[in-house]
Amino acid sequence: MYDLREESSSKCWGGYQKVYSHFSKELNCRMNFGIYLPEFLLNSNNKEKAPVLYYLSGLTCTEQNFIIKSGFQRYASELKLIVVNPDTSPRGCNIEGEDTDWDFGTGAGFYVDSLTEKFKNNYRMYSYVTKELIQLVEDNFGDFIIKGCRAISGHSMGGHGALISALKNPGLFKCAAAFAPISNPINCLWGKKCFSGYLGEENKNLWANYDASELVAKYKGPDLKIRIDQGADDPYLNDQLKVDNFVKACQKSNVPINYYLHEGFDHGYFFVSTFIPDHFSHISKILYSKN
Amino acid sequence: MYDLREESSSKCWGGYQKVYSHFSKELNCRMNFGIYLPEFLLNSNNKEKAPVLYYLSGLTCTEQNFIIKSGFQRYASELKLIVVNPDTSPRGCNIEGEDTDWDFGTGAGFYVDSLTEKFKNNYRMYSYVTKELIQLVEDNFGDFIIKGCRAISGHSMGGHGALISALKNPGLFKCAAAFAPISNPINCLWGKKCFSGYLGEENKNLWANYDASELVAKYKGPDLKIRIDQGADDPYLNDQLKVDNFVKACQKSNVPINYYLHEGFDHGYFFVSTFIPDHFSHISKILYSKN
Repeated sequence: MYDLREESSSKCWGGYQKVYSHFSKELNCRMNFGIYLPEFLLNSNNKEKAPVLYYLSGLTCTEQNFIIKSGFQRYASELKLIVVNPDTSPRGCNIEGEDTDWDFGTGAGFYVDSLTEKFKNNYRMYSYVTKELIQLVEDNFGDFIIKGCRAISGHSMGGHGALISALKNPGLFKCAAAFAPISNPINCLWGKKCFSGYLGEENKNLWANYDASELVAKYKGPDLKIRIDQGADDPYLNDQLKVDNFVKACQKSNVPINYYLHEGFDHGYFFVSTFIPDHFSHISKILYSKN
Repeated sequence: MYDLREESSSKCWGGYQKVYSHFSKELNCRMNFGIYLPEFLLNSNNKEKAPVLYYLSGLTCTEQNFIIKSGFQRYASELKLIVVNPDTSPRGCNIEGEDTDWDFGTGAGFYVDSLTEKFKNNYRMYSYVTKELIQLVEDNFGDFIIKGCRAISGHSMGGHGALISALKNPGLFKCAAAFAPISNPINCLWGKKCFSGYLGEENKNLWANYDASELVAKYKGPDLKIRIDQGADDPYLNDQLKVDNFVKACQKSNVPINYYLHEGFDHGYFFVSTFIPDHFSHISKILYSKN
């Protein structure tokens, strides 16, 4: 049904970094995702299982960037987390204009379900991440997984994806976290460009359904234990990310948030890799807690 | 004299990952190198200094691969090491044929001083690494550096470069180490191809001067405290790397070596990143020891 194929597998720290490809019904194309499996899960006499952290990447990324640049494997191994990280858009759909800009189309799916004629048959990253990918992972790696024990995080556009996926699906994830998320896309250029292309100007009233700052104001559901790590020297912070707007919206609606602003750090993987240990540790504690 | 320019600087763990470019007299072109500076060195009231680890990369790499993929910055920061990593060949010299193959020419300087008419004005990576780069670093970052306190390591072709640089210059480095080094290049295809092109068939009697297994047999000098980390599932181990030949040559000539063969690991950066902590810890202990 998924036509799942293992594309690569390498030992890394105490586990295996693998990449799989499969056919996606939501996106109408083949997709890659990374999965890191701590080694103890693979021992023949193991009976333990592990929670799953879904991690969404930012503009221009494939599944490779996070795997190669973040160094997360050490901490996933130590903290006993399975980590699944998908690509950031459908690939090779031959839609006119999808490869013109780095911040729209290929590599920039923006984790929405497209409504426009041109994109609606392929650009459905929201349903891909929150439904199809989770189902695929649980169908194929179910022996390793603590049922229903999931978290979601991501970086930049992927941080936006993580926050909205959790806020729109109360109970699906025990924890939502992000590095430098695009926090109020209806009020920044990156967001406006993608929402305009994927959702359409004619549906502007629906854009707020994919905006974390708008969604959190109306959130009713279990505590999401949100954590955001942000570089204070991130050049995109004020114009594109607008994390302050999200933090204020959380406070206004009494949604607990841990917000860490790190002096001197910028927007890139040097920032992400530095705070992966604390970020993952926060997530792991929540996933392994009894509540 | 060097026309040194800072090309980038990002905070990463407890320090700054920088890239500089400069004009190289040895190579007759502009070159990039990475330098990681632990933050304490940059504090205005700091009086401490640090040793320097030179790290050489493998075939096809620029200075970026190690910086992005290995995650070394955490350990350099914790162990108080300055890490300098150059590019792997001259760039843009417009020599006919230098961009045809991935394992010869651009990205494959092989850390030798070329003798052939075609390459001898540019492909002088041996002198670049062991003389010009060290001089440049000490001239420009001298305030941060414990004088004469250096180690050298590298990966694959860079492991070869590290071993020969240390073996040919007794006393220049307090420690030589390598990940999966090409250990006996005169007896493998990668080595023969590059030695043939850079040194020439007519100078075959000189090839052994750049072969670690040959050099260690004749080594007379201070103890080099050699450490090699090797993946047991590395597909290049038997045909190209021939690490066994080097280990045997060390034992035959009573040169102490720590050789760690790691079950299940392959040749790539997932292997390197897993063992960077132990590898760097070994090097740091030697550099900070009083002897």
